[in-house]
Amino acid sequence: MALTITEKIIKHHLINGTLDRGRPITIKIDQTLVHDATGTMAMLELEATGIKRVKTDLSVAYIDHNMIQEDFKNPDDHRFLQDMAAKYGVMFSRPGNGICHHVHLERFAVPGKTLLGSDSHTPTAGGIGMLAIGAGGLDVALAMAGEPFTLIMPKIVKVNLIGKLPSFVSAKDVILEVLRRVSVKGGVGKVFEYCGPGVKSLSVSERATITNMGAETGATTSIFESDEVTRQWLRAQGREREWVSLHPDIDAVYDEEINIDLSLLEPLVARPFLPDNVVPVKEVTGIRVDQVMFGSCTNSSLRDILTIAHMLKGKRIHPNVDAGLSPGSRQILLQAGAEGALEDLITAGVRILEASCGACVGMGFAPPSEGVSVRTINRNFYGRCGHTSGKVYLASPEVAAAACITGEIADPRDVFVEPFYFEMPSGLIVDEGMFIAPSPEPEKIVVRRGPNIKPLPEMGPLPDKLEGKALIKVGDDITTDHIMPAGAKFLPLRSNIPAISDHVFEVLDPTFAKRAKELNGGFIVAGANYGQGSSREHAALAPKYLGIKAVVAKSFARIHLANLVNFGILPLIFADVKDYEKIDQGDDFFFDVTQLDAEFRGTLHDLTKNIEIEVVCPLSADDLKVVKAGGRLNWIKLNASNDRR
Amino acid sequence: MALTITEKIIKHHLINGTLDRGRPITIKIDQTLVHDATGTMAMLELEATGIKRVKTDLSVAYIDHNMIQEDFKNPDDHRFLQDMAAKYGVMFSRPGNGICHHVHLERFAVPGKTLLGSDSHTPTAGGIGMLAIGAGGLDVALAMAGEPFTLIMPKIVKVNLIGKLPSFVSAKDVILEVLRRVSVKGGVGKVFEYCGPGVKSLSVSERATITNMGAETGATTSIFESDEVTRQWLRAQGREREWVSLHPDIDAVYDEEINIDLSLLEPLVARPFLPDNVVPVKEVTGIRVDQVMFGSCTNSSLRDILTIAHMLKGKRIHPNVDAGLSPGSRQILLQAGAEGALEDLITAGVRILEASCGACVGMGFAPPSEGVSVRTINRNFYGRCGHTSGKVYLASPEVAAAACITGEIADPRDVFVEPFYFEMPSGLIVDEGMFIAPSPEPEKIVVRRGPNIKPLPEMGPLPDKLEGKALIKVGDDITTDHIMPAGAKFLPLRSNIPAISDHVFEVLDPTFAKRAKELNGGFIVAGANYGQGSSREHAALAPKYLGIKAVVAKSFARIHLANLVNFGILPLIFADVKDYEKIDQGDDFFFDVTQLDAEFRGTLHDLTKNIEIEVVCPLSADDLKVVKAGGRLNWIKLNASNDRR
Repeated sequence: MALTITEKIIKHHLINGTLDRGRPITIKIDQTLVHDATGTMAMLELEATGIKRVKTDLSVAYIDHNMIQEDFKNPDDHRFLQDMAAKYGVMFSRPGNGICHHVHLERFAVPGKTLLGSDSHTPTAGGIGMLAIGAGGLDVALAMAGEPFTLIMPKIVKVNLIGKLPSFVSAKDVILEVLRRVSVKGGVGKVFEYCGPGVKSLSVSERATITNMGAETGATTSIFESDEVTRQWLRAQGREREWVSLHPDIDAVYDEEINIDLSLLEPLVARPFLPDNVVPVKEVTGIRVDQVMFGSCTNSSLRDILTIAHMLKGKRIHPNVDAGLSPGSRQILLQAGAEGALEDLITAGVRILEASCGACVGMGFAPPSEGVSVRTINRNFYGRCGHTSGKVYLASPEVAAAACITGEIADPRDVFVEPFYFEMPSGLIVDEGMFIAPSPEPEKIVVRRGPNIKPLPEMGPLPDKLEGKALIKVGDDITTDHIMPAGAKFLPLRSNIPAISDHVFEVLDPTFAKRAKELNGGFIVAGANYGQGSSREHAALAPKYLGIKAVVAKSFARIHLANLVNFGILPLIFADVKDYEKIDQGDDFFFDVTQLDAEFRGTLHDLTKNIEIEVVCPLSADDLKVVKAGGRLNWIKLNASNDRR
Repeated sequence: MALTITEKIIKHHLINGTLDRGRPITIKIDQTLVHDATGTMAMLELEATGIKRVKTDLSVAYIDHNMIQEDFKNPDDHRFLQDMAAKYGVMFSRPGNGICHHVHLERFAVPGKTLLGSDSHTPTAGGIGMLAIGAGGLDVALAMAGEPFTLIMPKIVKVNLIGKLPSFVSAKDVILEVLRRVSVKGGVGKVFEYCGPGVKSLSVSERATITNMGAETGATTSIFESDEVTRQWLRAQGREREWVSLHPDIDAVYDEEINIDLSLLEPLVARPFLPDNVVPVKEVTGIRVDQVMFGSCTNSSLRDILTIAHMLKGKRIHPNVDAGLSPGSRQILLQAGAEGALEDLITAGVRILEASCGACVGMGFAPPSEGVSVRTINRNFYGRCGHTSGKVYLASPEVAAAACITGEIADPRDVFVEPFYFEMPSGLIVDEGMFIAPSPEPEKIVVRRGPNIKPLPEMGPLPDKLEGKALIKVGDDITTDHIMPAGAKFLPLRSNIPAISDHVFEVLDPTFAKRAKELNGGFIVAGANYGQGSSREHAALAPKYLGIKAVVAKSFARIHLANLVNFGILPLIFADVKDYEKIDQGDDFFFDVTQLDAEFRGTLHDLTKNIEIEVVCPLSADDLKVVKAGGRLNWIKLNASNDRR
């Protein structure tokens, strides 16, 4: 049988299930990654499983998100992760070593293998031909513990690239074009496989830009072929021996096909506040720009930095623009320094920030009030830049460089004359000195826990009969940044569920947490694609802590749905989406979980309106048991004690 | 008459008074500097004076303190300062250009001229032979408006340097030795003049390290001769034409003399929590270190960075140590890059932070809970690192580099073999592209004020009869970091007095602000050297906003005393310091300002204890009028309206 790349990798890793689309499968996970914003919780969960040492080929903990260190919380988290990594057999990447996705691509990602990461942009490693999936921290913890990962066998979309990108158009424009076509919901339940004659014109970094931001479509993941370009990348990293060739079979059958002629693309931008709000840059030129941010995990590769440096060399950033760069990794920083690009950027007036996620996740470098910020990052969600009045436009390095010089949104083809052609160096500066290998004597490691690192809260089982108010009613495309904001004020609380829970829905309704606590929990009502964006399990864990029993939505984003299961919140989907309109915030609900029929259909009673609303629980029977147990950790403990009997 | 350097400069700038020690004088100010932590308030004050354009030779506004930009507040402040600078004729130094003291030394400081800066480390420019004095923002605003600066004619201390520093001992050890000898109170009312045959062995950067941290003695300022080394520095900066020779006359008479044989010095550290808590490093070796911070304004010169790079080259930072560097300026960053030092540091594992004040003032890079941090900065005050459990040791770059490698406090002479000898390059990378000159059309500038930039609160006049409780009783050496904390949580509120006032004394007593508000203000009781440290006028302005009427102390630090006057809080000194013991927090006080006698002595009534305490008001008659008017801005307005009658 002719197979796609995705099918080949899944088949090779399949533990349960078949390649039939839409059915649950379990696969073996070869590698995992966590970082300091999701990793402290994941490591606490790993600890709760009772295993002594991770069972993957490789697990890595990166410090890249919370590097401001405003007080003891961030550095305590770093130290906790370092100790836990040493103890449990996890490679530790020190602060300063770079952003997890870049560093993983450089040093560990392998074509044909599987990677599960507690970050939604884990698909970055798809640029090298790895099946790399984002998941909640608990799923990653269980993968570290050797458990297979459960997912719905995705549909596979062939993205057929032909032609070659014109000057001043780059990989970012490819993924913005995909987003323009399919929307932030268009990838749910799908893998995007990039094939075709256009692939070979893209470097691994460019491919990784595309697979990274494929997360914004809601896709399970995105992946490229592994070819000679991939081999060249691995050779430059001193890892050629890890290369394997990976292509779809000639007769491979895809569920859908998208054709993109690279030569016809033009510079694009995504306007606030969603990554699919995409228009050609020429439609928005002239908007005054206050800030430009280069980098974070999407466009901070050597290729990107050399491109920006080429464009800014000998010029000055506009007086109205504050410009900063977060390089992707220490390797990239060193290499850009060696090639003179850093000097050119500093001379032009660009602030060199740390190799960290930084401004992308609201950890500093916020724009001014009502400020327009052009960023090469992947998300422009409401409030994500540090405050709700900032307006983030997502763009390529080329468009961002043009904004730097002109002080407004501008078409780089109108600003620059000489395009830059990136050639991958035959050798890169390889230096693994900022990794700390797991301890050979784990029993001697005493894990230091700062006062902000709180134990996982106890979660009770879900009662059979759910009662409570619709505490909030929100619209479509609600992101995890709406539910559980990131940024410098909230990320430091990621290891402290009681404290972070006070900020659930804060950007939409600052009274939510207080109301939820006073009423001992209740229901959330939502539109389509609820929970898109980040993999952060805090968007389920914190509502659970506040007593949320169920979320009734038009549809759910993949990772968030899994997180709701993991933490024992019942997801329900309107059988008829029009019923969404009949409900108001504040309505009293009743739902009897035991009344779900064989197809998991049931009736939600709106006691205030005195109406009955048909809903469907989008879970497997196993997952429903997990929810009823109050989450997956409870479920594991329950089974362990059953096993002992 | 034979004169000291200080006398020569003062004489040349004298407007009122004589060189008689201890008497008020006024001097002409040639240059001023403000930065983004004190500058927004200073510019609001400048605006309140009604002048249209600054009247100094040069005024500069730097962005260097609040560069985290957690939300809109920091960038709004930057934009406000940029607009105000353009409008009022002030040179603007963009974020990324570097720390005010370094940049000023590089580009603007001139031997023999006067500089007033709203930062206590303004004496850094004394390294080049400039009379550079730190003051509150309002004093700097008035200097910008062309008013002369009033100070008490200081005593002049000759610091006679002989010999040459041994290997691995550097300028930081010189100033730590001075602090060890004279204490954090020992410089009050004095200028330290560094002379003698040892001076010529010190580069301008090393001299500036010493004058910078001279602020920690409470001195009015510190100053070095201007000699051939100074000339060489100015030549490398392309400013040789601005050089003048500056030496004390042979028979100059000093009030005191300190002799330091440089060749006898050894590596020193200042233990927590005061800069004068100095011991030889060999007495504290072996203490486990969690963090090392290089740089900020004290030890981030090219000399320092090349030294650190030399020591760390080919080595790795210890696994327990997180190390970071804040370079002093963009020039230093570029130069260090060109000389390969950045590459060596990054390879060793050092995080390259922005050229900003950063961790020194608690803007990020905090150590973990109970963490030991070895820093090359100038202050280790309680809580200043971002939290109160961090323990900061102040040390030279050499000692900090040794801690980096060994993971503990270590004597660099035991760790390194090859010392580094710095040679000043004959030319430096000079690039003024990150300055924005004042607008030629100031009337066209519309100043953008973010929502956090609040107008100066109205301050009523001080009543004749002061009643209220002793709201807090504190000990000796209370710093401005105790009174009005800095750091990432509080600095963004500097433009918003109502908001920042809620945090007065927070590190000592989080209930203070609430109690003060409820009781409509009251008194502060303090020990010796009250208000040492920073020049921040918020340490007077915020208590004033909370209704504080008077501070009764054993003694005051110079700049804070001036700030109390400027904002209409009455300073009182115990006639008998033993009376301090008789008072308790919570006692009810009564003080009749009109009862002050000709020598400004009066009686404080402790109604609770039913005792009378003799106090002295340490002000001139003019300054007392200012206090009674409710502060200097009220006083100016009052006189302006009197003039109109």
